[in-house]
Amino acid sequence: MPGSSTFLQACAREPVSTVPVWYMRQAGRYQPEYRKVREKYSLLEIVRHPEICFQVTKLPVDQLNVDAAILFSDIMVPVGPLGVKFDIKEHVGPVIESPVRSAADVDRLHLYDPNIELPYVMETIRMLANDLPVPLIGFTGGPFTLASYMIEGGPSRNYVRTKQLMWSEPAVWHTLMDKLAEMNIAYLTAQIQAGASAVQLFDSWVGHLAPEDFERYVLPAVQKMFTALRPLGVPLIYSGVITGELLPLIAQSGATVVSIDWRVPIPEARKRLGSHIAIQGNLDPVLLFAPWQELERRARAVVDAGIAGPGFIFNLGHGVVHNNPTIETATLARLTEFVHEYSRERLAQGAADWV
Amino acid sequence: MPGSSTFLQACAREPVSTVPVWYMRQAGRYQPEYRKVREKYSLLEIVRHPEICFQVTKLPVDQLNVDAAILFSDIMVPVGPLGVKFDIKEHVGPVIESPVRSAADVDRLHLYDPNIELPYVMETIRMLANDLPVPLIGFTGGPFTLASYMIEGGPSRNYVRTKQLMWSEPAVWHTLMDKLAEMNIAYLTAQIQAGASAVQLFDSWVGHLAPEDFERYVLPAVQKMFTALRPLGVPLIYSGVITGELLPLIAQSGATVVSIDWRVPIPEARKRLGSHIAIQGNLDPVLLFAPWQELERRARAVVDAGIAGPGFIFNLGHGVVHNNPTIETATLARLTEFVHEYSRERLAQGAADWV
Repeated sequence: MPGSSTFLQACAREPVSTVPVWYMRQAGRYQPEYRKVREKYSLLEIVRHPEICFQVTKLPVDQLNVDAAILFSDIMVPVGPLGVKFDIKEHVGPVIESPVRSAADVDRLHLYDPNIELPYVMETIRMLANDLPVPLIGFTGGPFTLASYMIEGGPSRNYVRTKQLMWSEPAVWHTLMDKLAEMNIAYLTAQIQAGASAVQLFDSWVGHLAPEDFERYVLPAVQKMFTALRPLGVPLIYSGVITGELLPLIAQSGATVVSIDWRVPIPEARKRLGSHIAIQGNLDPVLLFAPWQELERRARAVVDAGIAGPGFIFNLGHGVVHNNPTIETATLARLTEFVHEYSRERLAQGAADWV
Repeated sequence: MPGSSTFLQACAREPVSTVPVWYMRQAGRYQPEYRKVREKYSLLEIVRHPEICFQVTKLPVDQLNVDAAILFSDIMVPVGPLGVKFDIKEHVGPVIESPVRSAADVDRLHLYDPNIELPYVMETIRMLANDLPVPLIGFTGGPFTLASYMIEGGPSRNYVRTKQLMWSEPAVWHTLMDKLAEMNIAYLTAQIQAGASAVQLFDSWVGHLAPEDFERYVLPAVQKMFTALRPLGVPLIYSGVITGELLPLIAQSGATVVSIDWRVPIPEARKRLGSHIAIQGNLDPVLLFAPWQELERRARAVVDAGIAGPGFIFNLGHGVVHNNPTIETATLARLTEFVHEYSRERLAQGAADWV
């Protein structure tokens, strides 16, 4: 890990010379090289093979000149050793063999030592931490999002069974949240000990909850996680989409960095989060399909809003979208270069007047 | 239409004795009677047969004791006569035969007289307006939502082609928005002339846009519509989901009522919309699957927040969800009764201190 990382500086809300950049799902289907790897290996096979996972994680750092790497994995990986059998189906997502829906199902989930059950993840992290020129972000799934897959049995549109369990059996729900928090604490602790310089909690679907439900049924588990991880001294990133109305609550989660989507203007997010939290975001990932002129104009606006306060990491509001036709690696590389150059210029001009 | 309708009073932000209630998708799959009709007729066949459409529209008024009926139809109905061939596929949604993606495609769309091309819609409305004990809400699809189906060719996850057209060919996009606005003005005018007492614009997917994009690419078309319809003197309802961050812009649309989802607390929505707009919403539709005690508690909170300002209509934050197992008609009927009784009591106690 480099001595002076703009990514870690921004996470700590320290002044930077350039705005750090990385992209959610920067390793993925849009890359021809990744598609080639996927011809031979499934997503979970990649995760289980440190040498392949190392390559897949590292490739976008080389190609895009980003300021952080993110471990290639899937949010469901830590759920397997709990005793939940699942597969990742192409064009569908996680599919669970026996959904978790009763007190007995929740009781059956057994906590485990991630260094023993998921040794390949830690091995990949050690290899990456030794080799990468930038910090490595470890990650896991947020408690609501993981619970929704486990309960629904796969992706969902309305989260009917998930919310039903939450409202009709709150004790079972809280036991489940608590187990997922414990699991995540152990998993992220192991990732940090193996060399991850930051960790991100992908609670992707939490934006389907009313603020009251988030506060009552999810926030305590997130707080428990971040409280336990705080002493390890790495940035704790919370990310979700459609979380605009939850930001005042997320501000109380213990997260040190919060990822926001393109729906929330950055100044508004700052107001709702308060001054103790760094912001990551928030370009609409579909803008990568726009003409360069529009993409550049919008990236400039994100940088301008971002550097107006302490702690800003340029990212997309959600993962890179793979479509047909897909975006070019060159577009993302050009975007990184633009953000670096434009922000360096603006920061040199004294645009960050909070410094 | 009744002389004194709480629904119309609330739309006009006048004091009411009870909070009016209706439910988006109050006619639909959750009803055994509707499922039976659908065994014989497709959705579009129902729309084309006034006597059947009349029954389907009227049934929830009788069953649920709601304060407004909403015309049974599909947002795609007015798009057909423009020259866009489509079908509504079960469990999928609208599927377009030849998507609209070029300037030539947009030029080919021809405006039409809805009284000539969609006479059955107006016939259904006339029958309903003569018969119903409550006001009838007419409706159409919002310009962004209709455009997204026409461009993508069906439902979409990321709206890549839609946003691509918007950003890469803004002139073509604006021509399309303009035609859809003109189409909607003619269609809703005909509905109002046939007897609709209010109209709702379902711009369901507009919440996928950043505020800047909504302002630039969609708002002008909505403003054009509402400006043209305003002189007809009926409430103009704008509805979408995930629109929290767009509310300050929607406040400038000319809508007299705005439907909000469960993500936005009602006091927050009032702040963003200003005092000139009535609010409709905003119970999470999945709460209909919760135990009655929780459903009642949450409905009470919605009523309490709603009556704290002028102009409030109780509704769901999105349409009734049909799941397996589905909700009972009795649950919705009980909810209507609860909202009526609880709000009557609170209003009699002087809870609406803005009066």
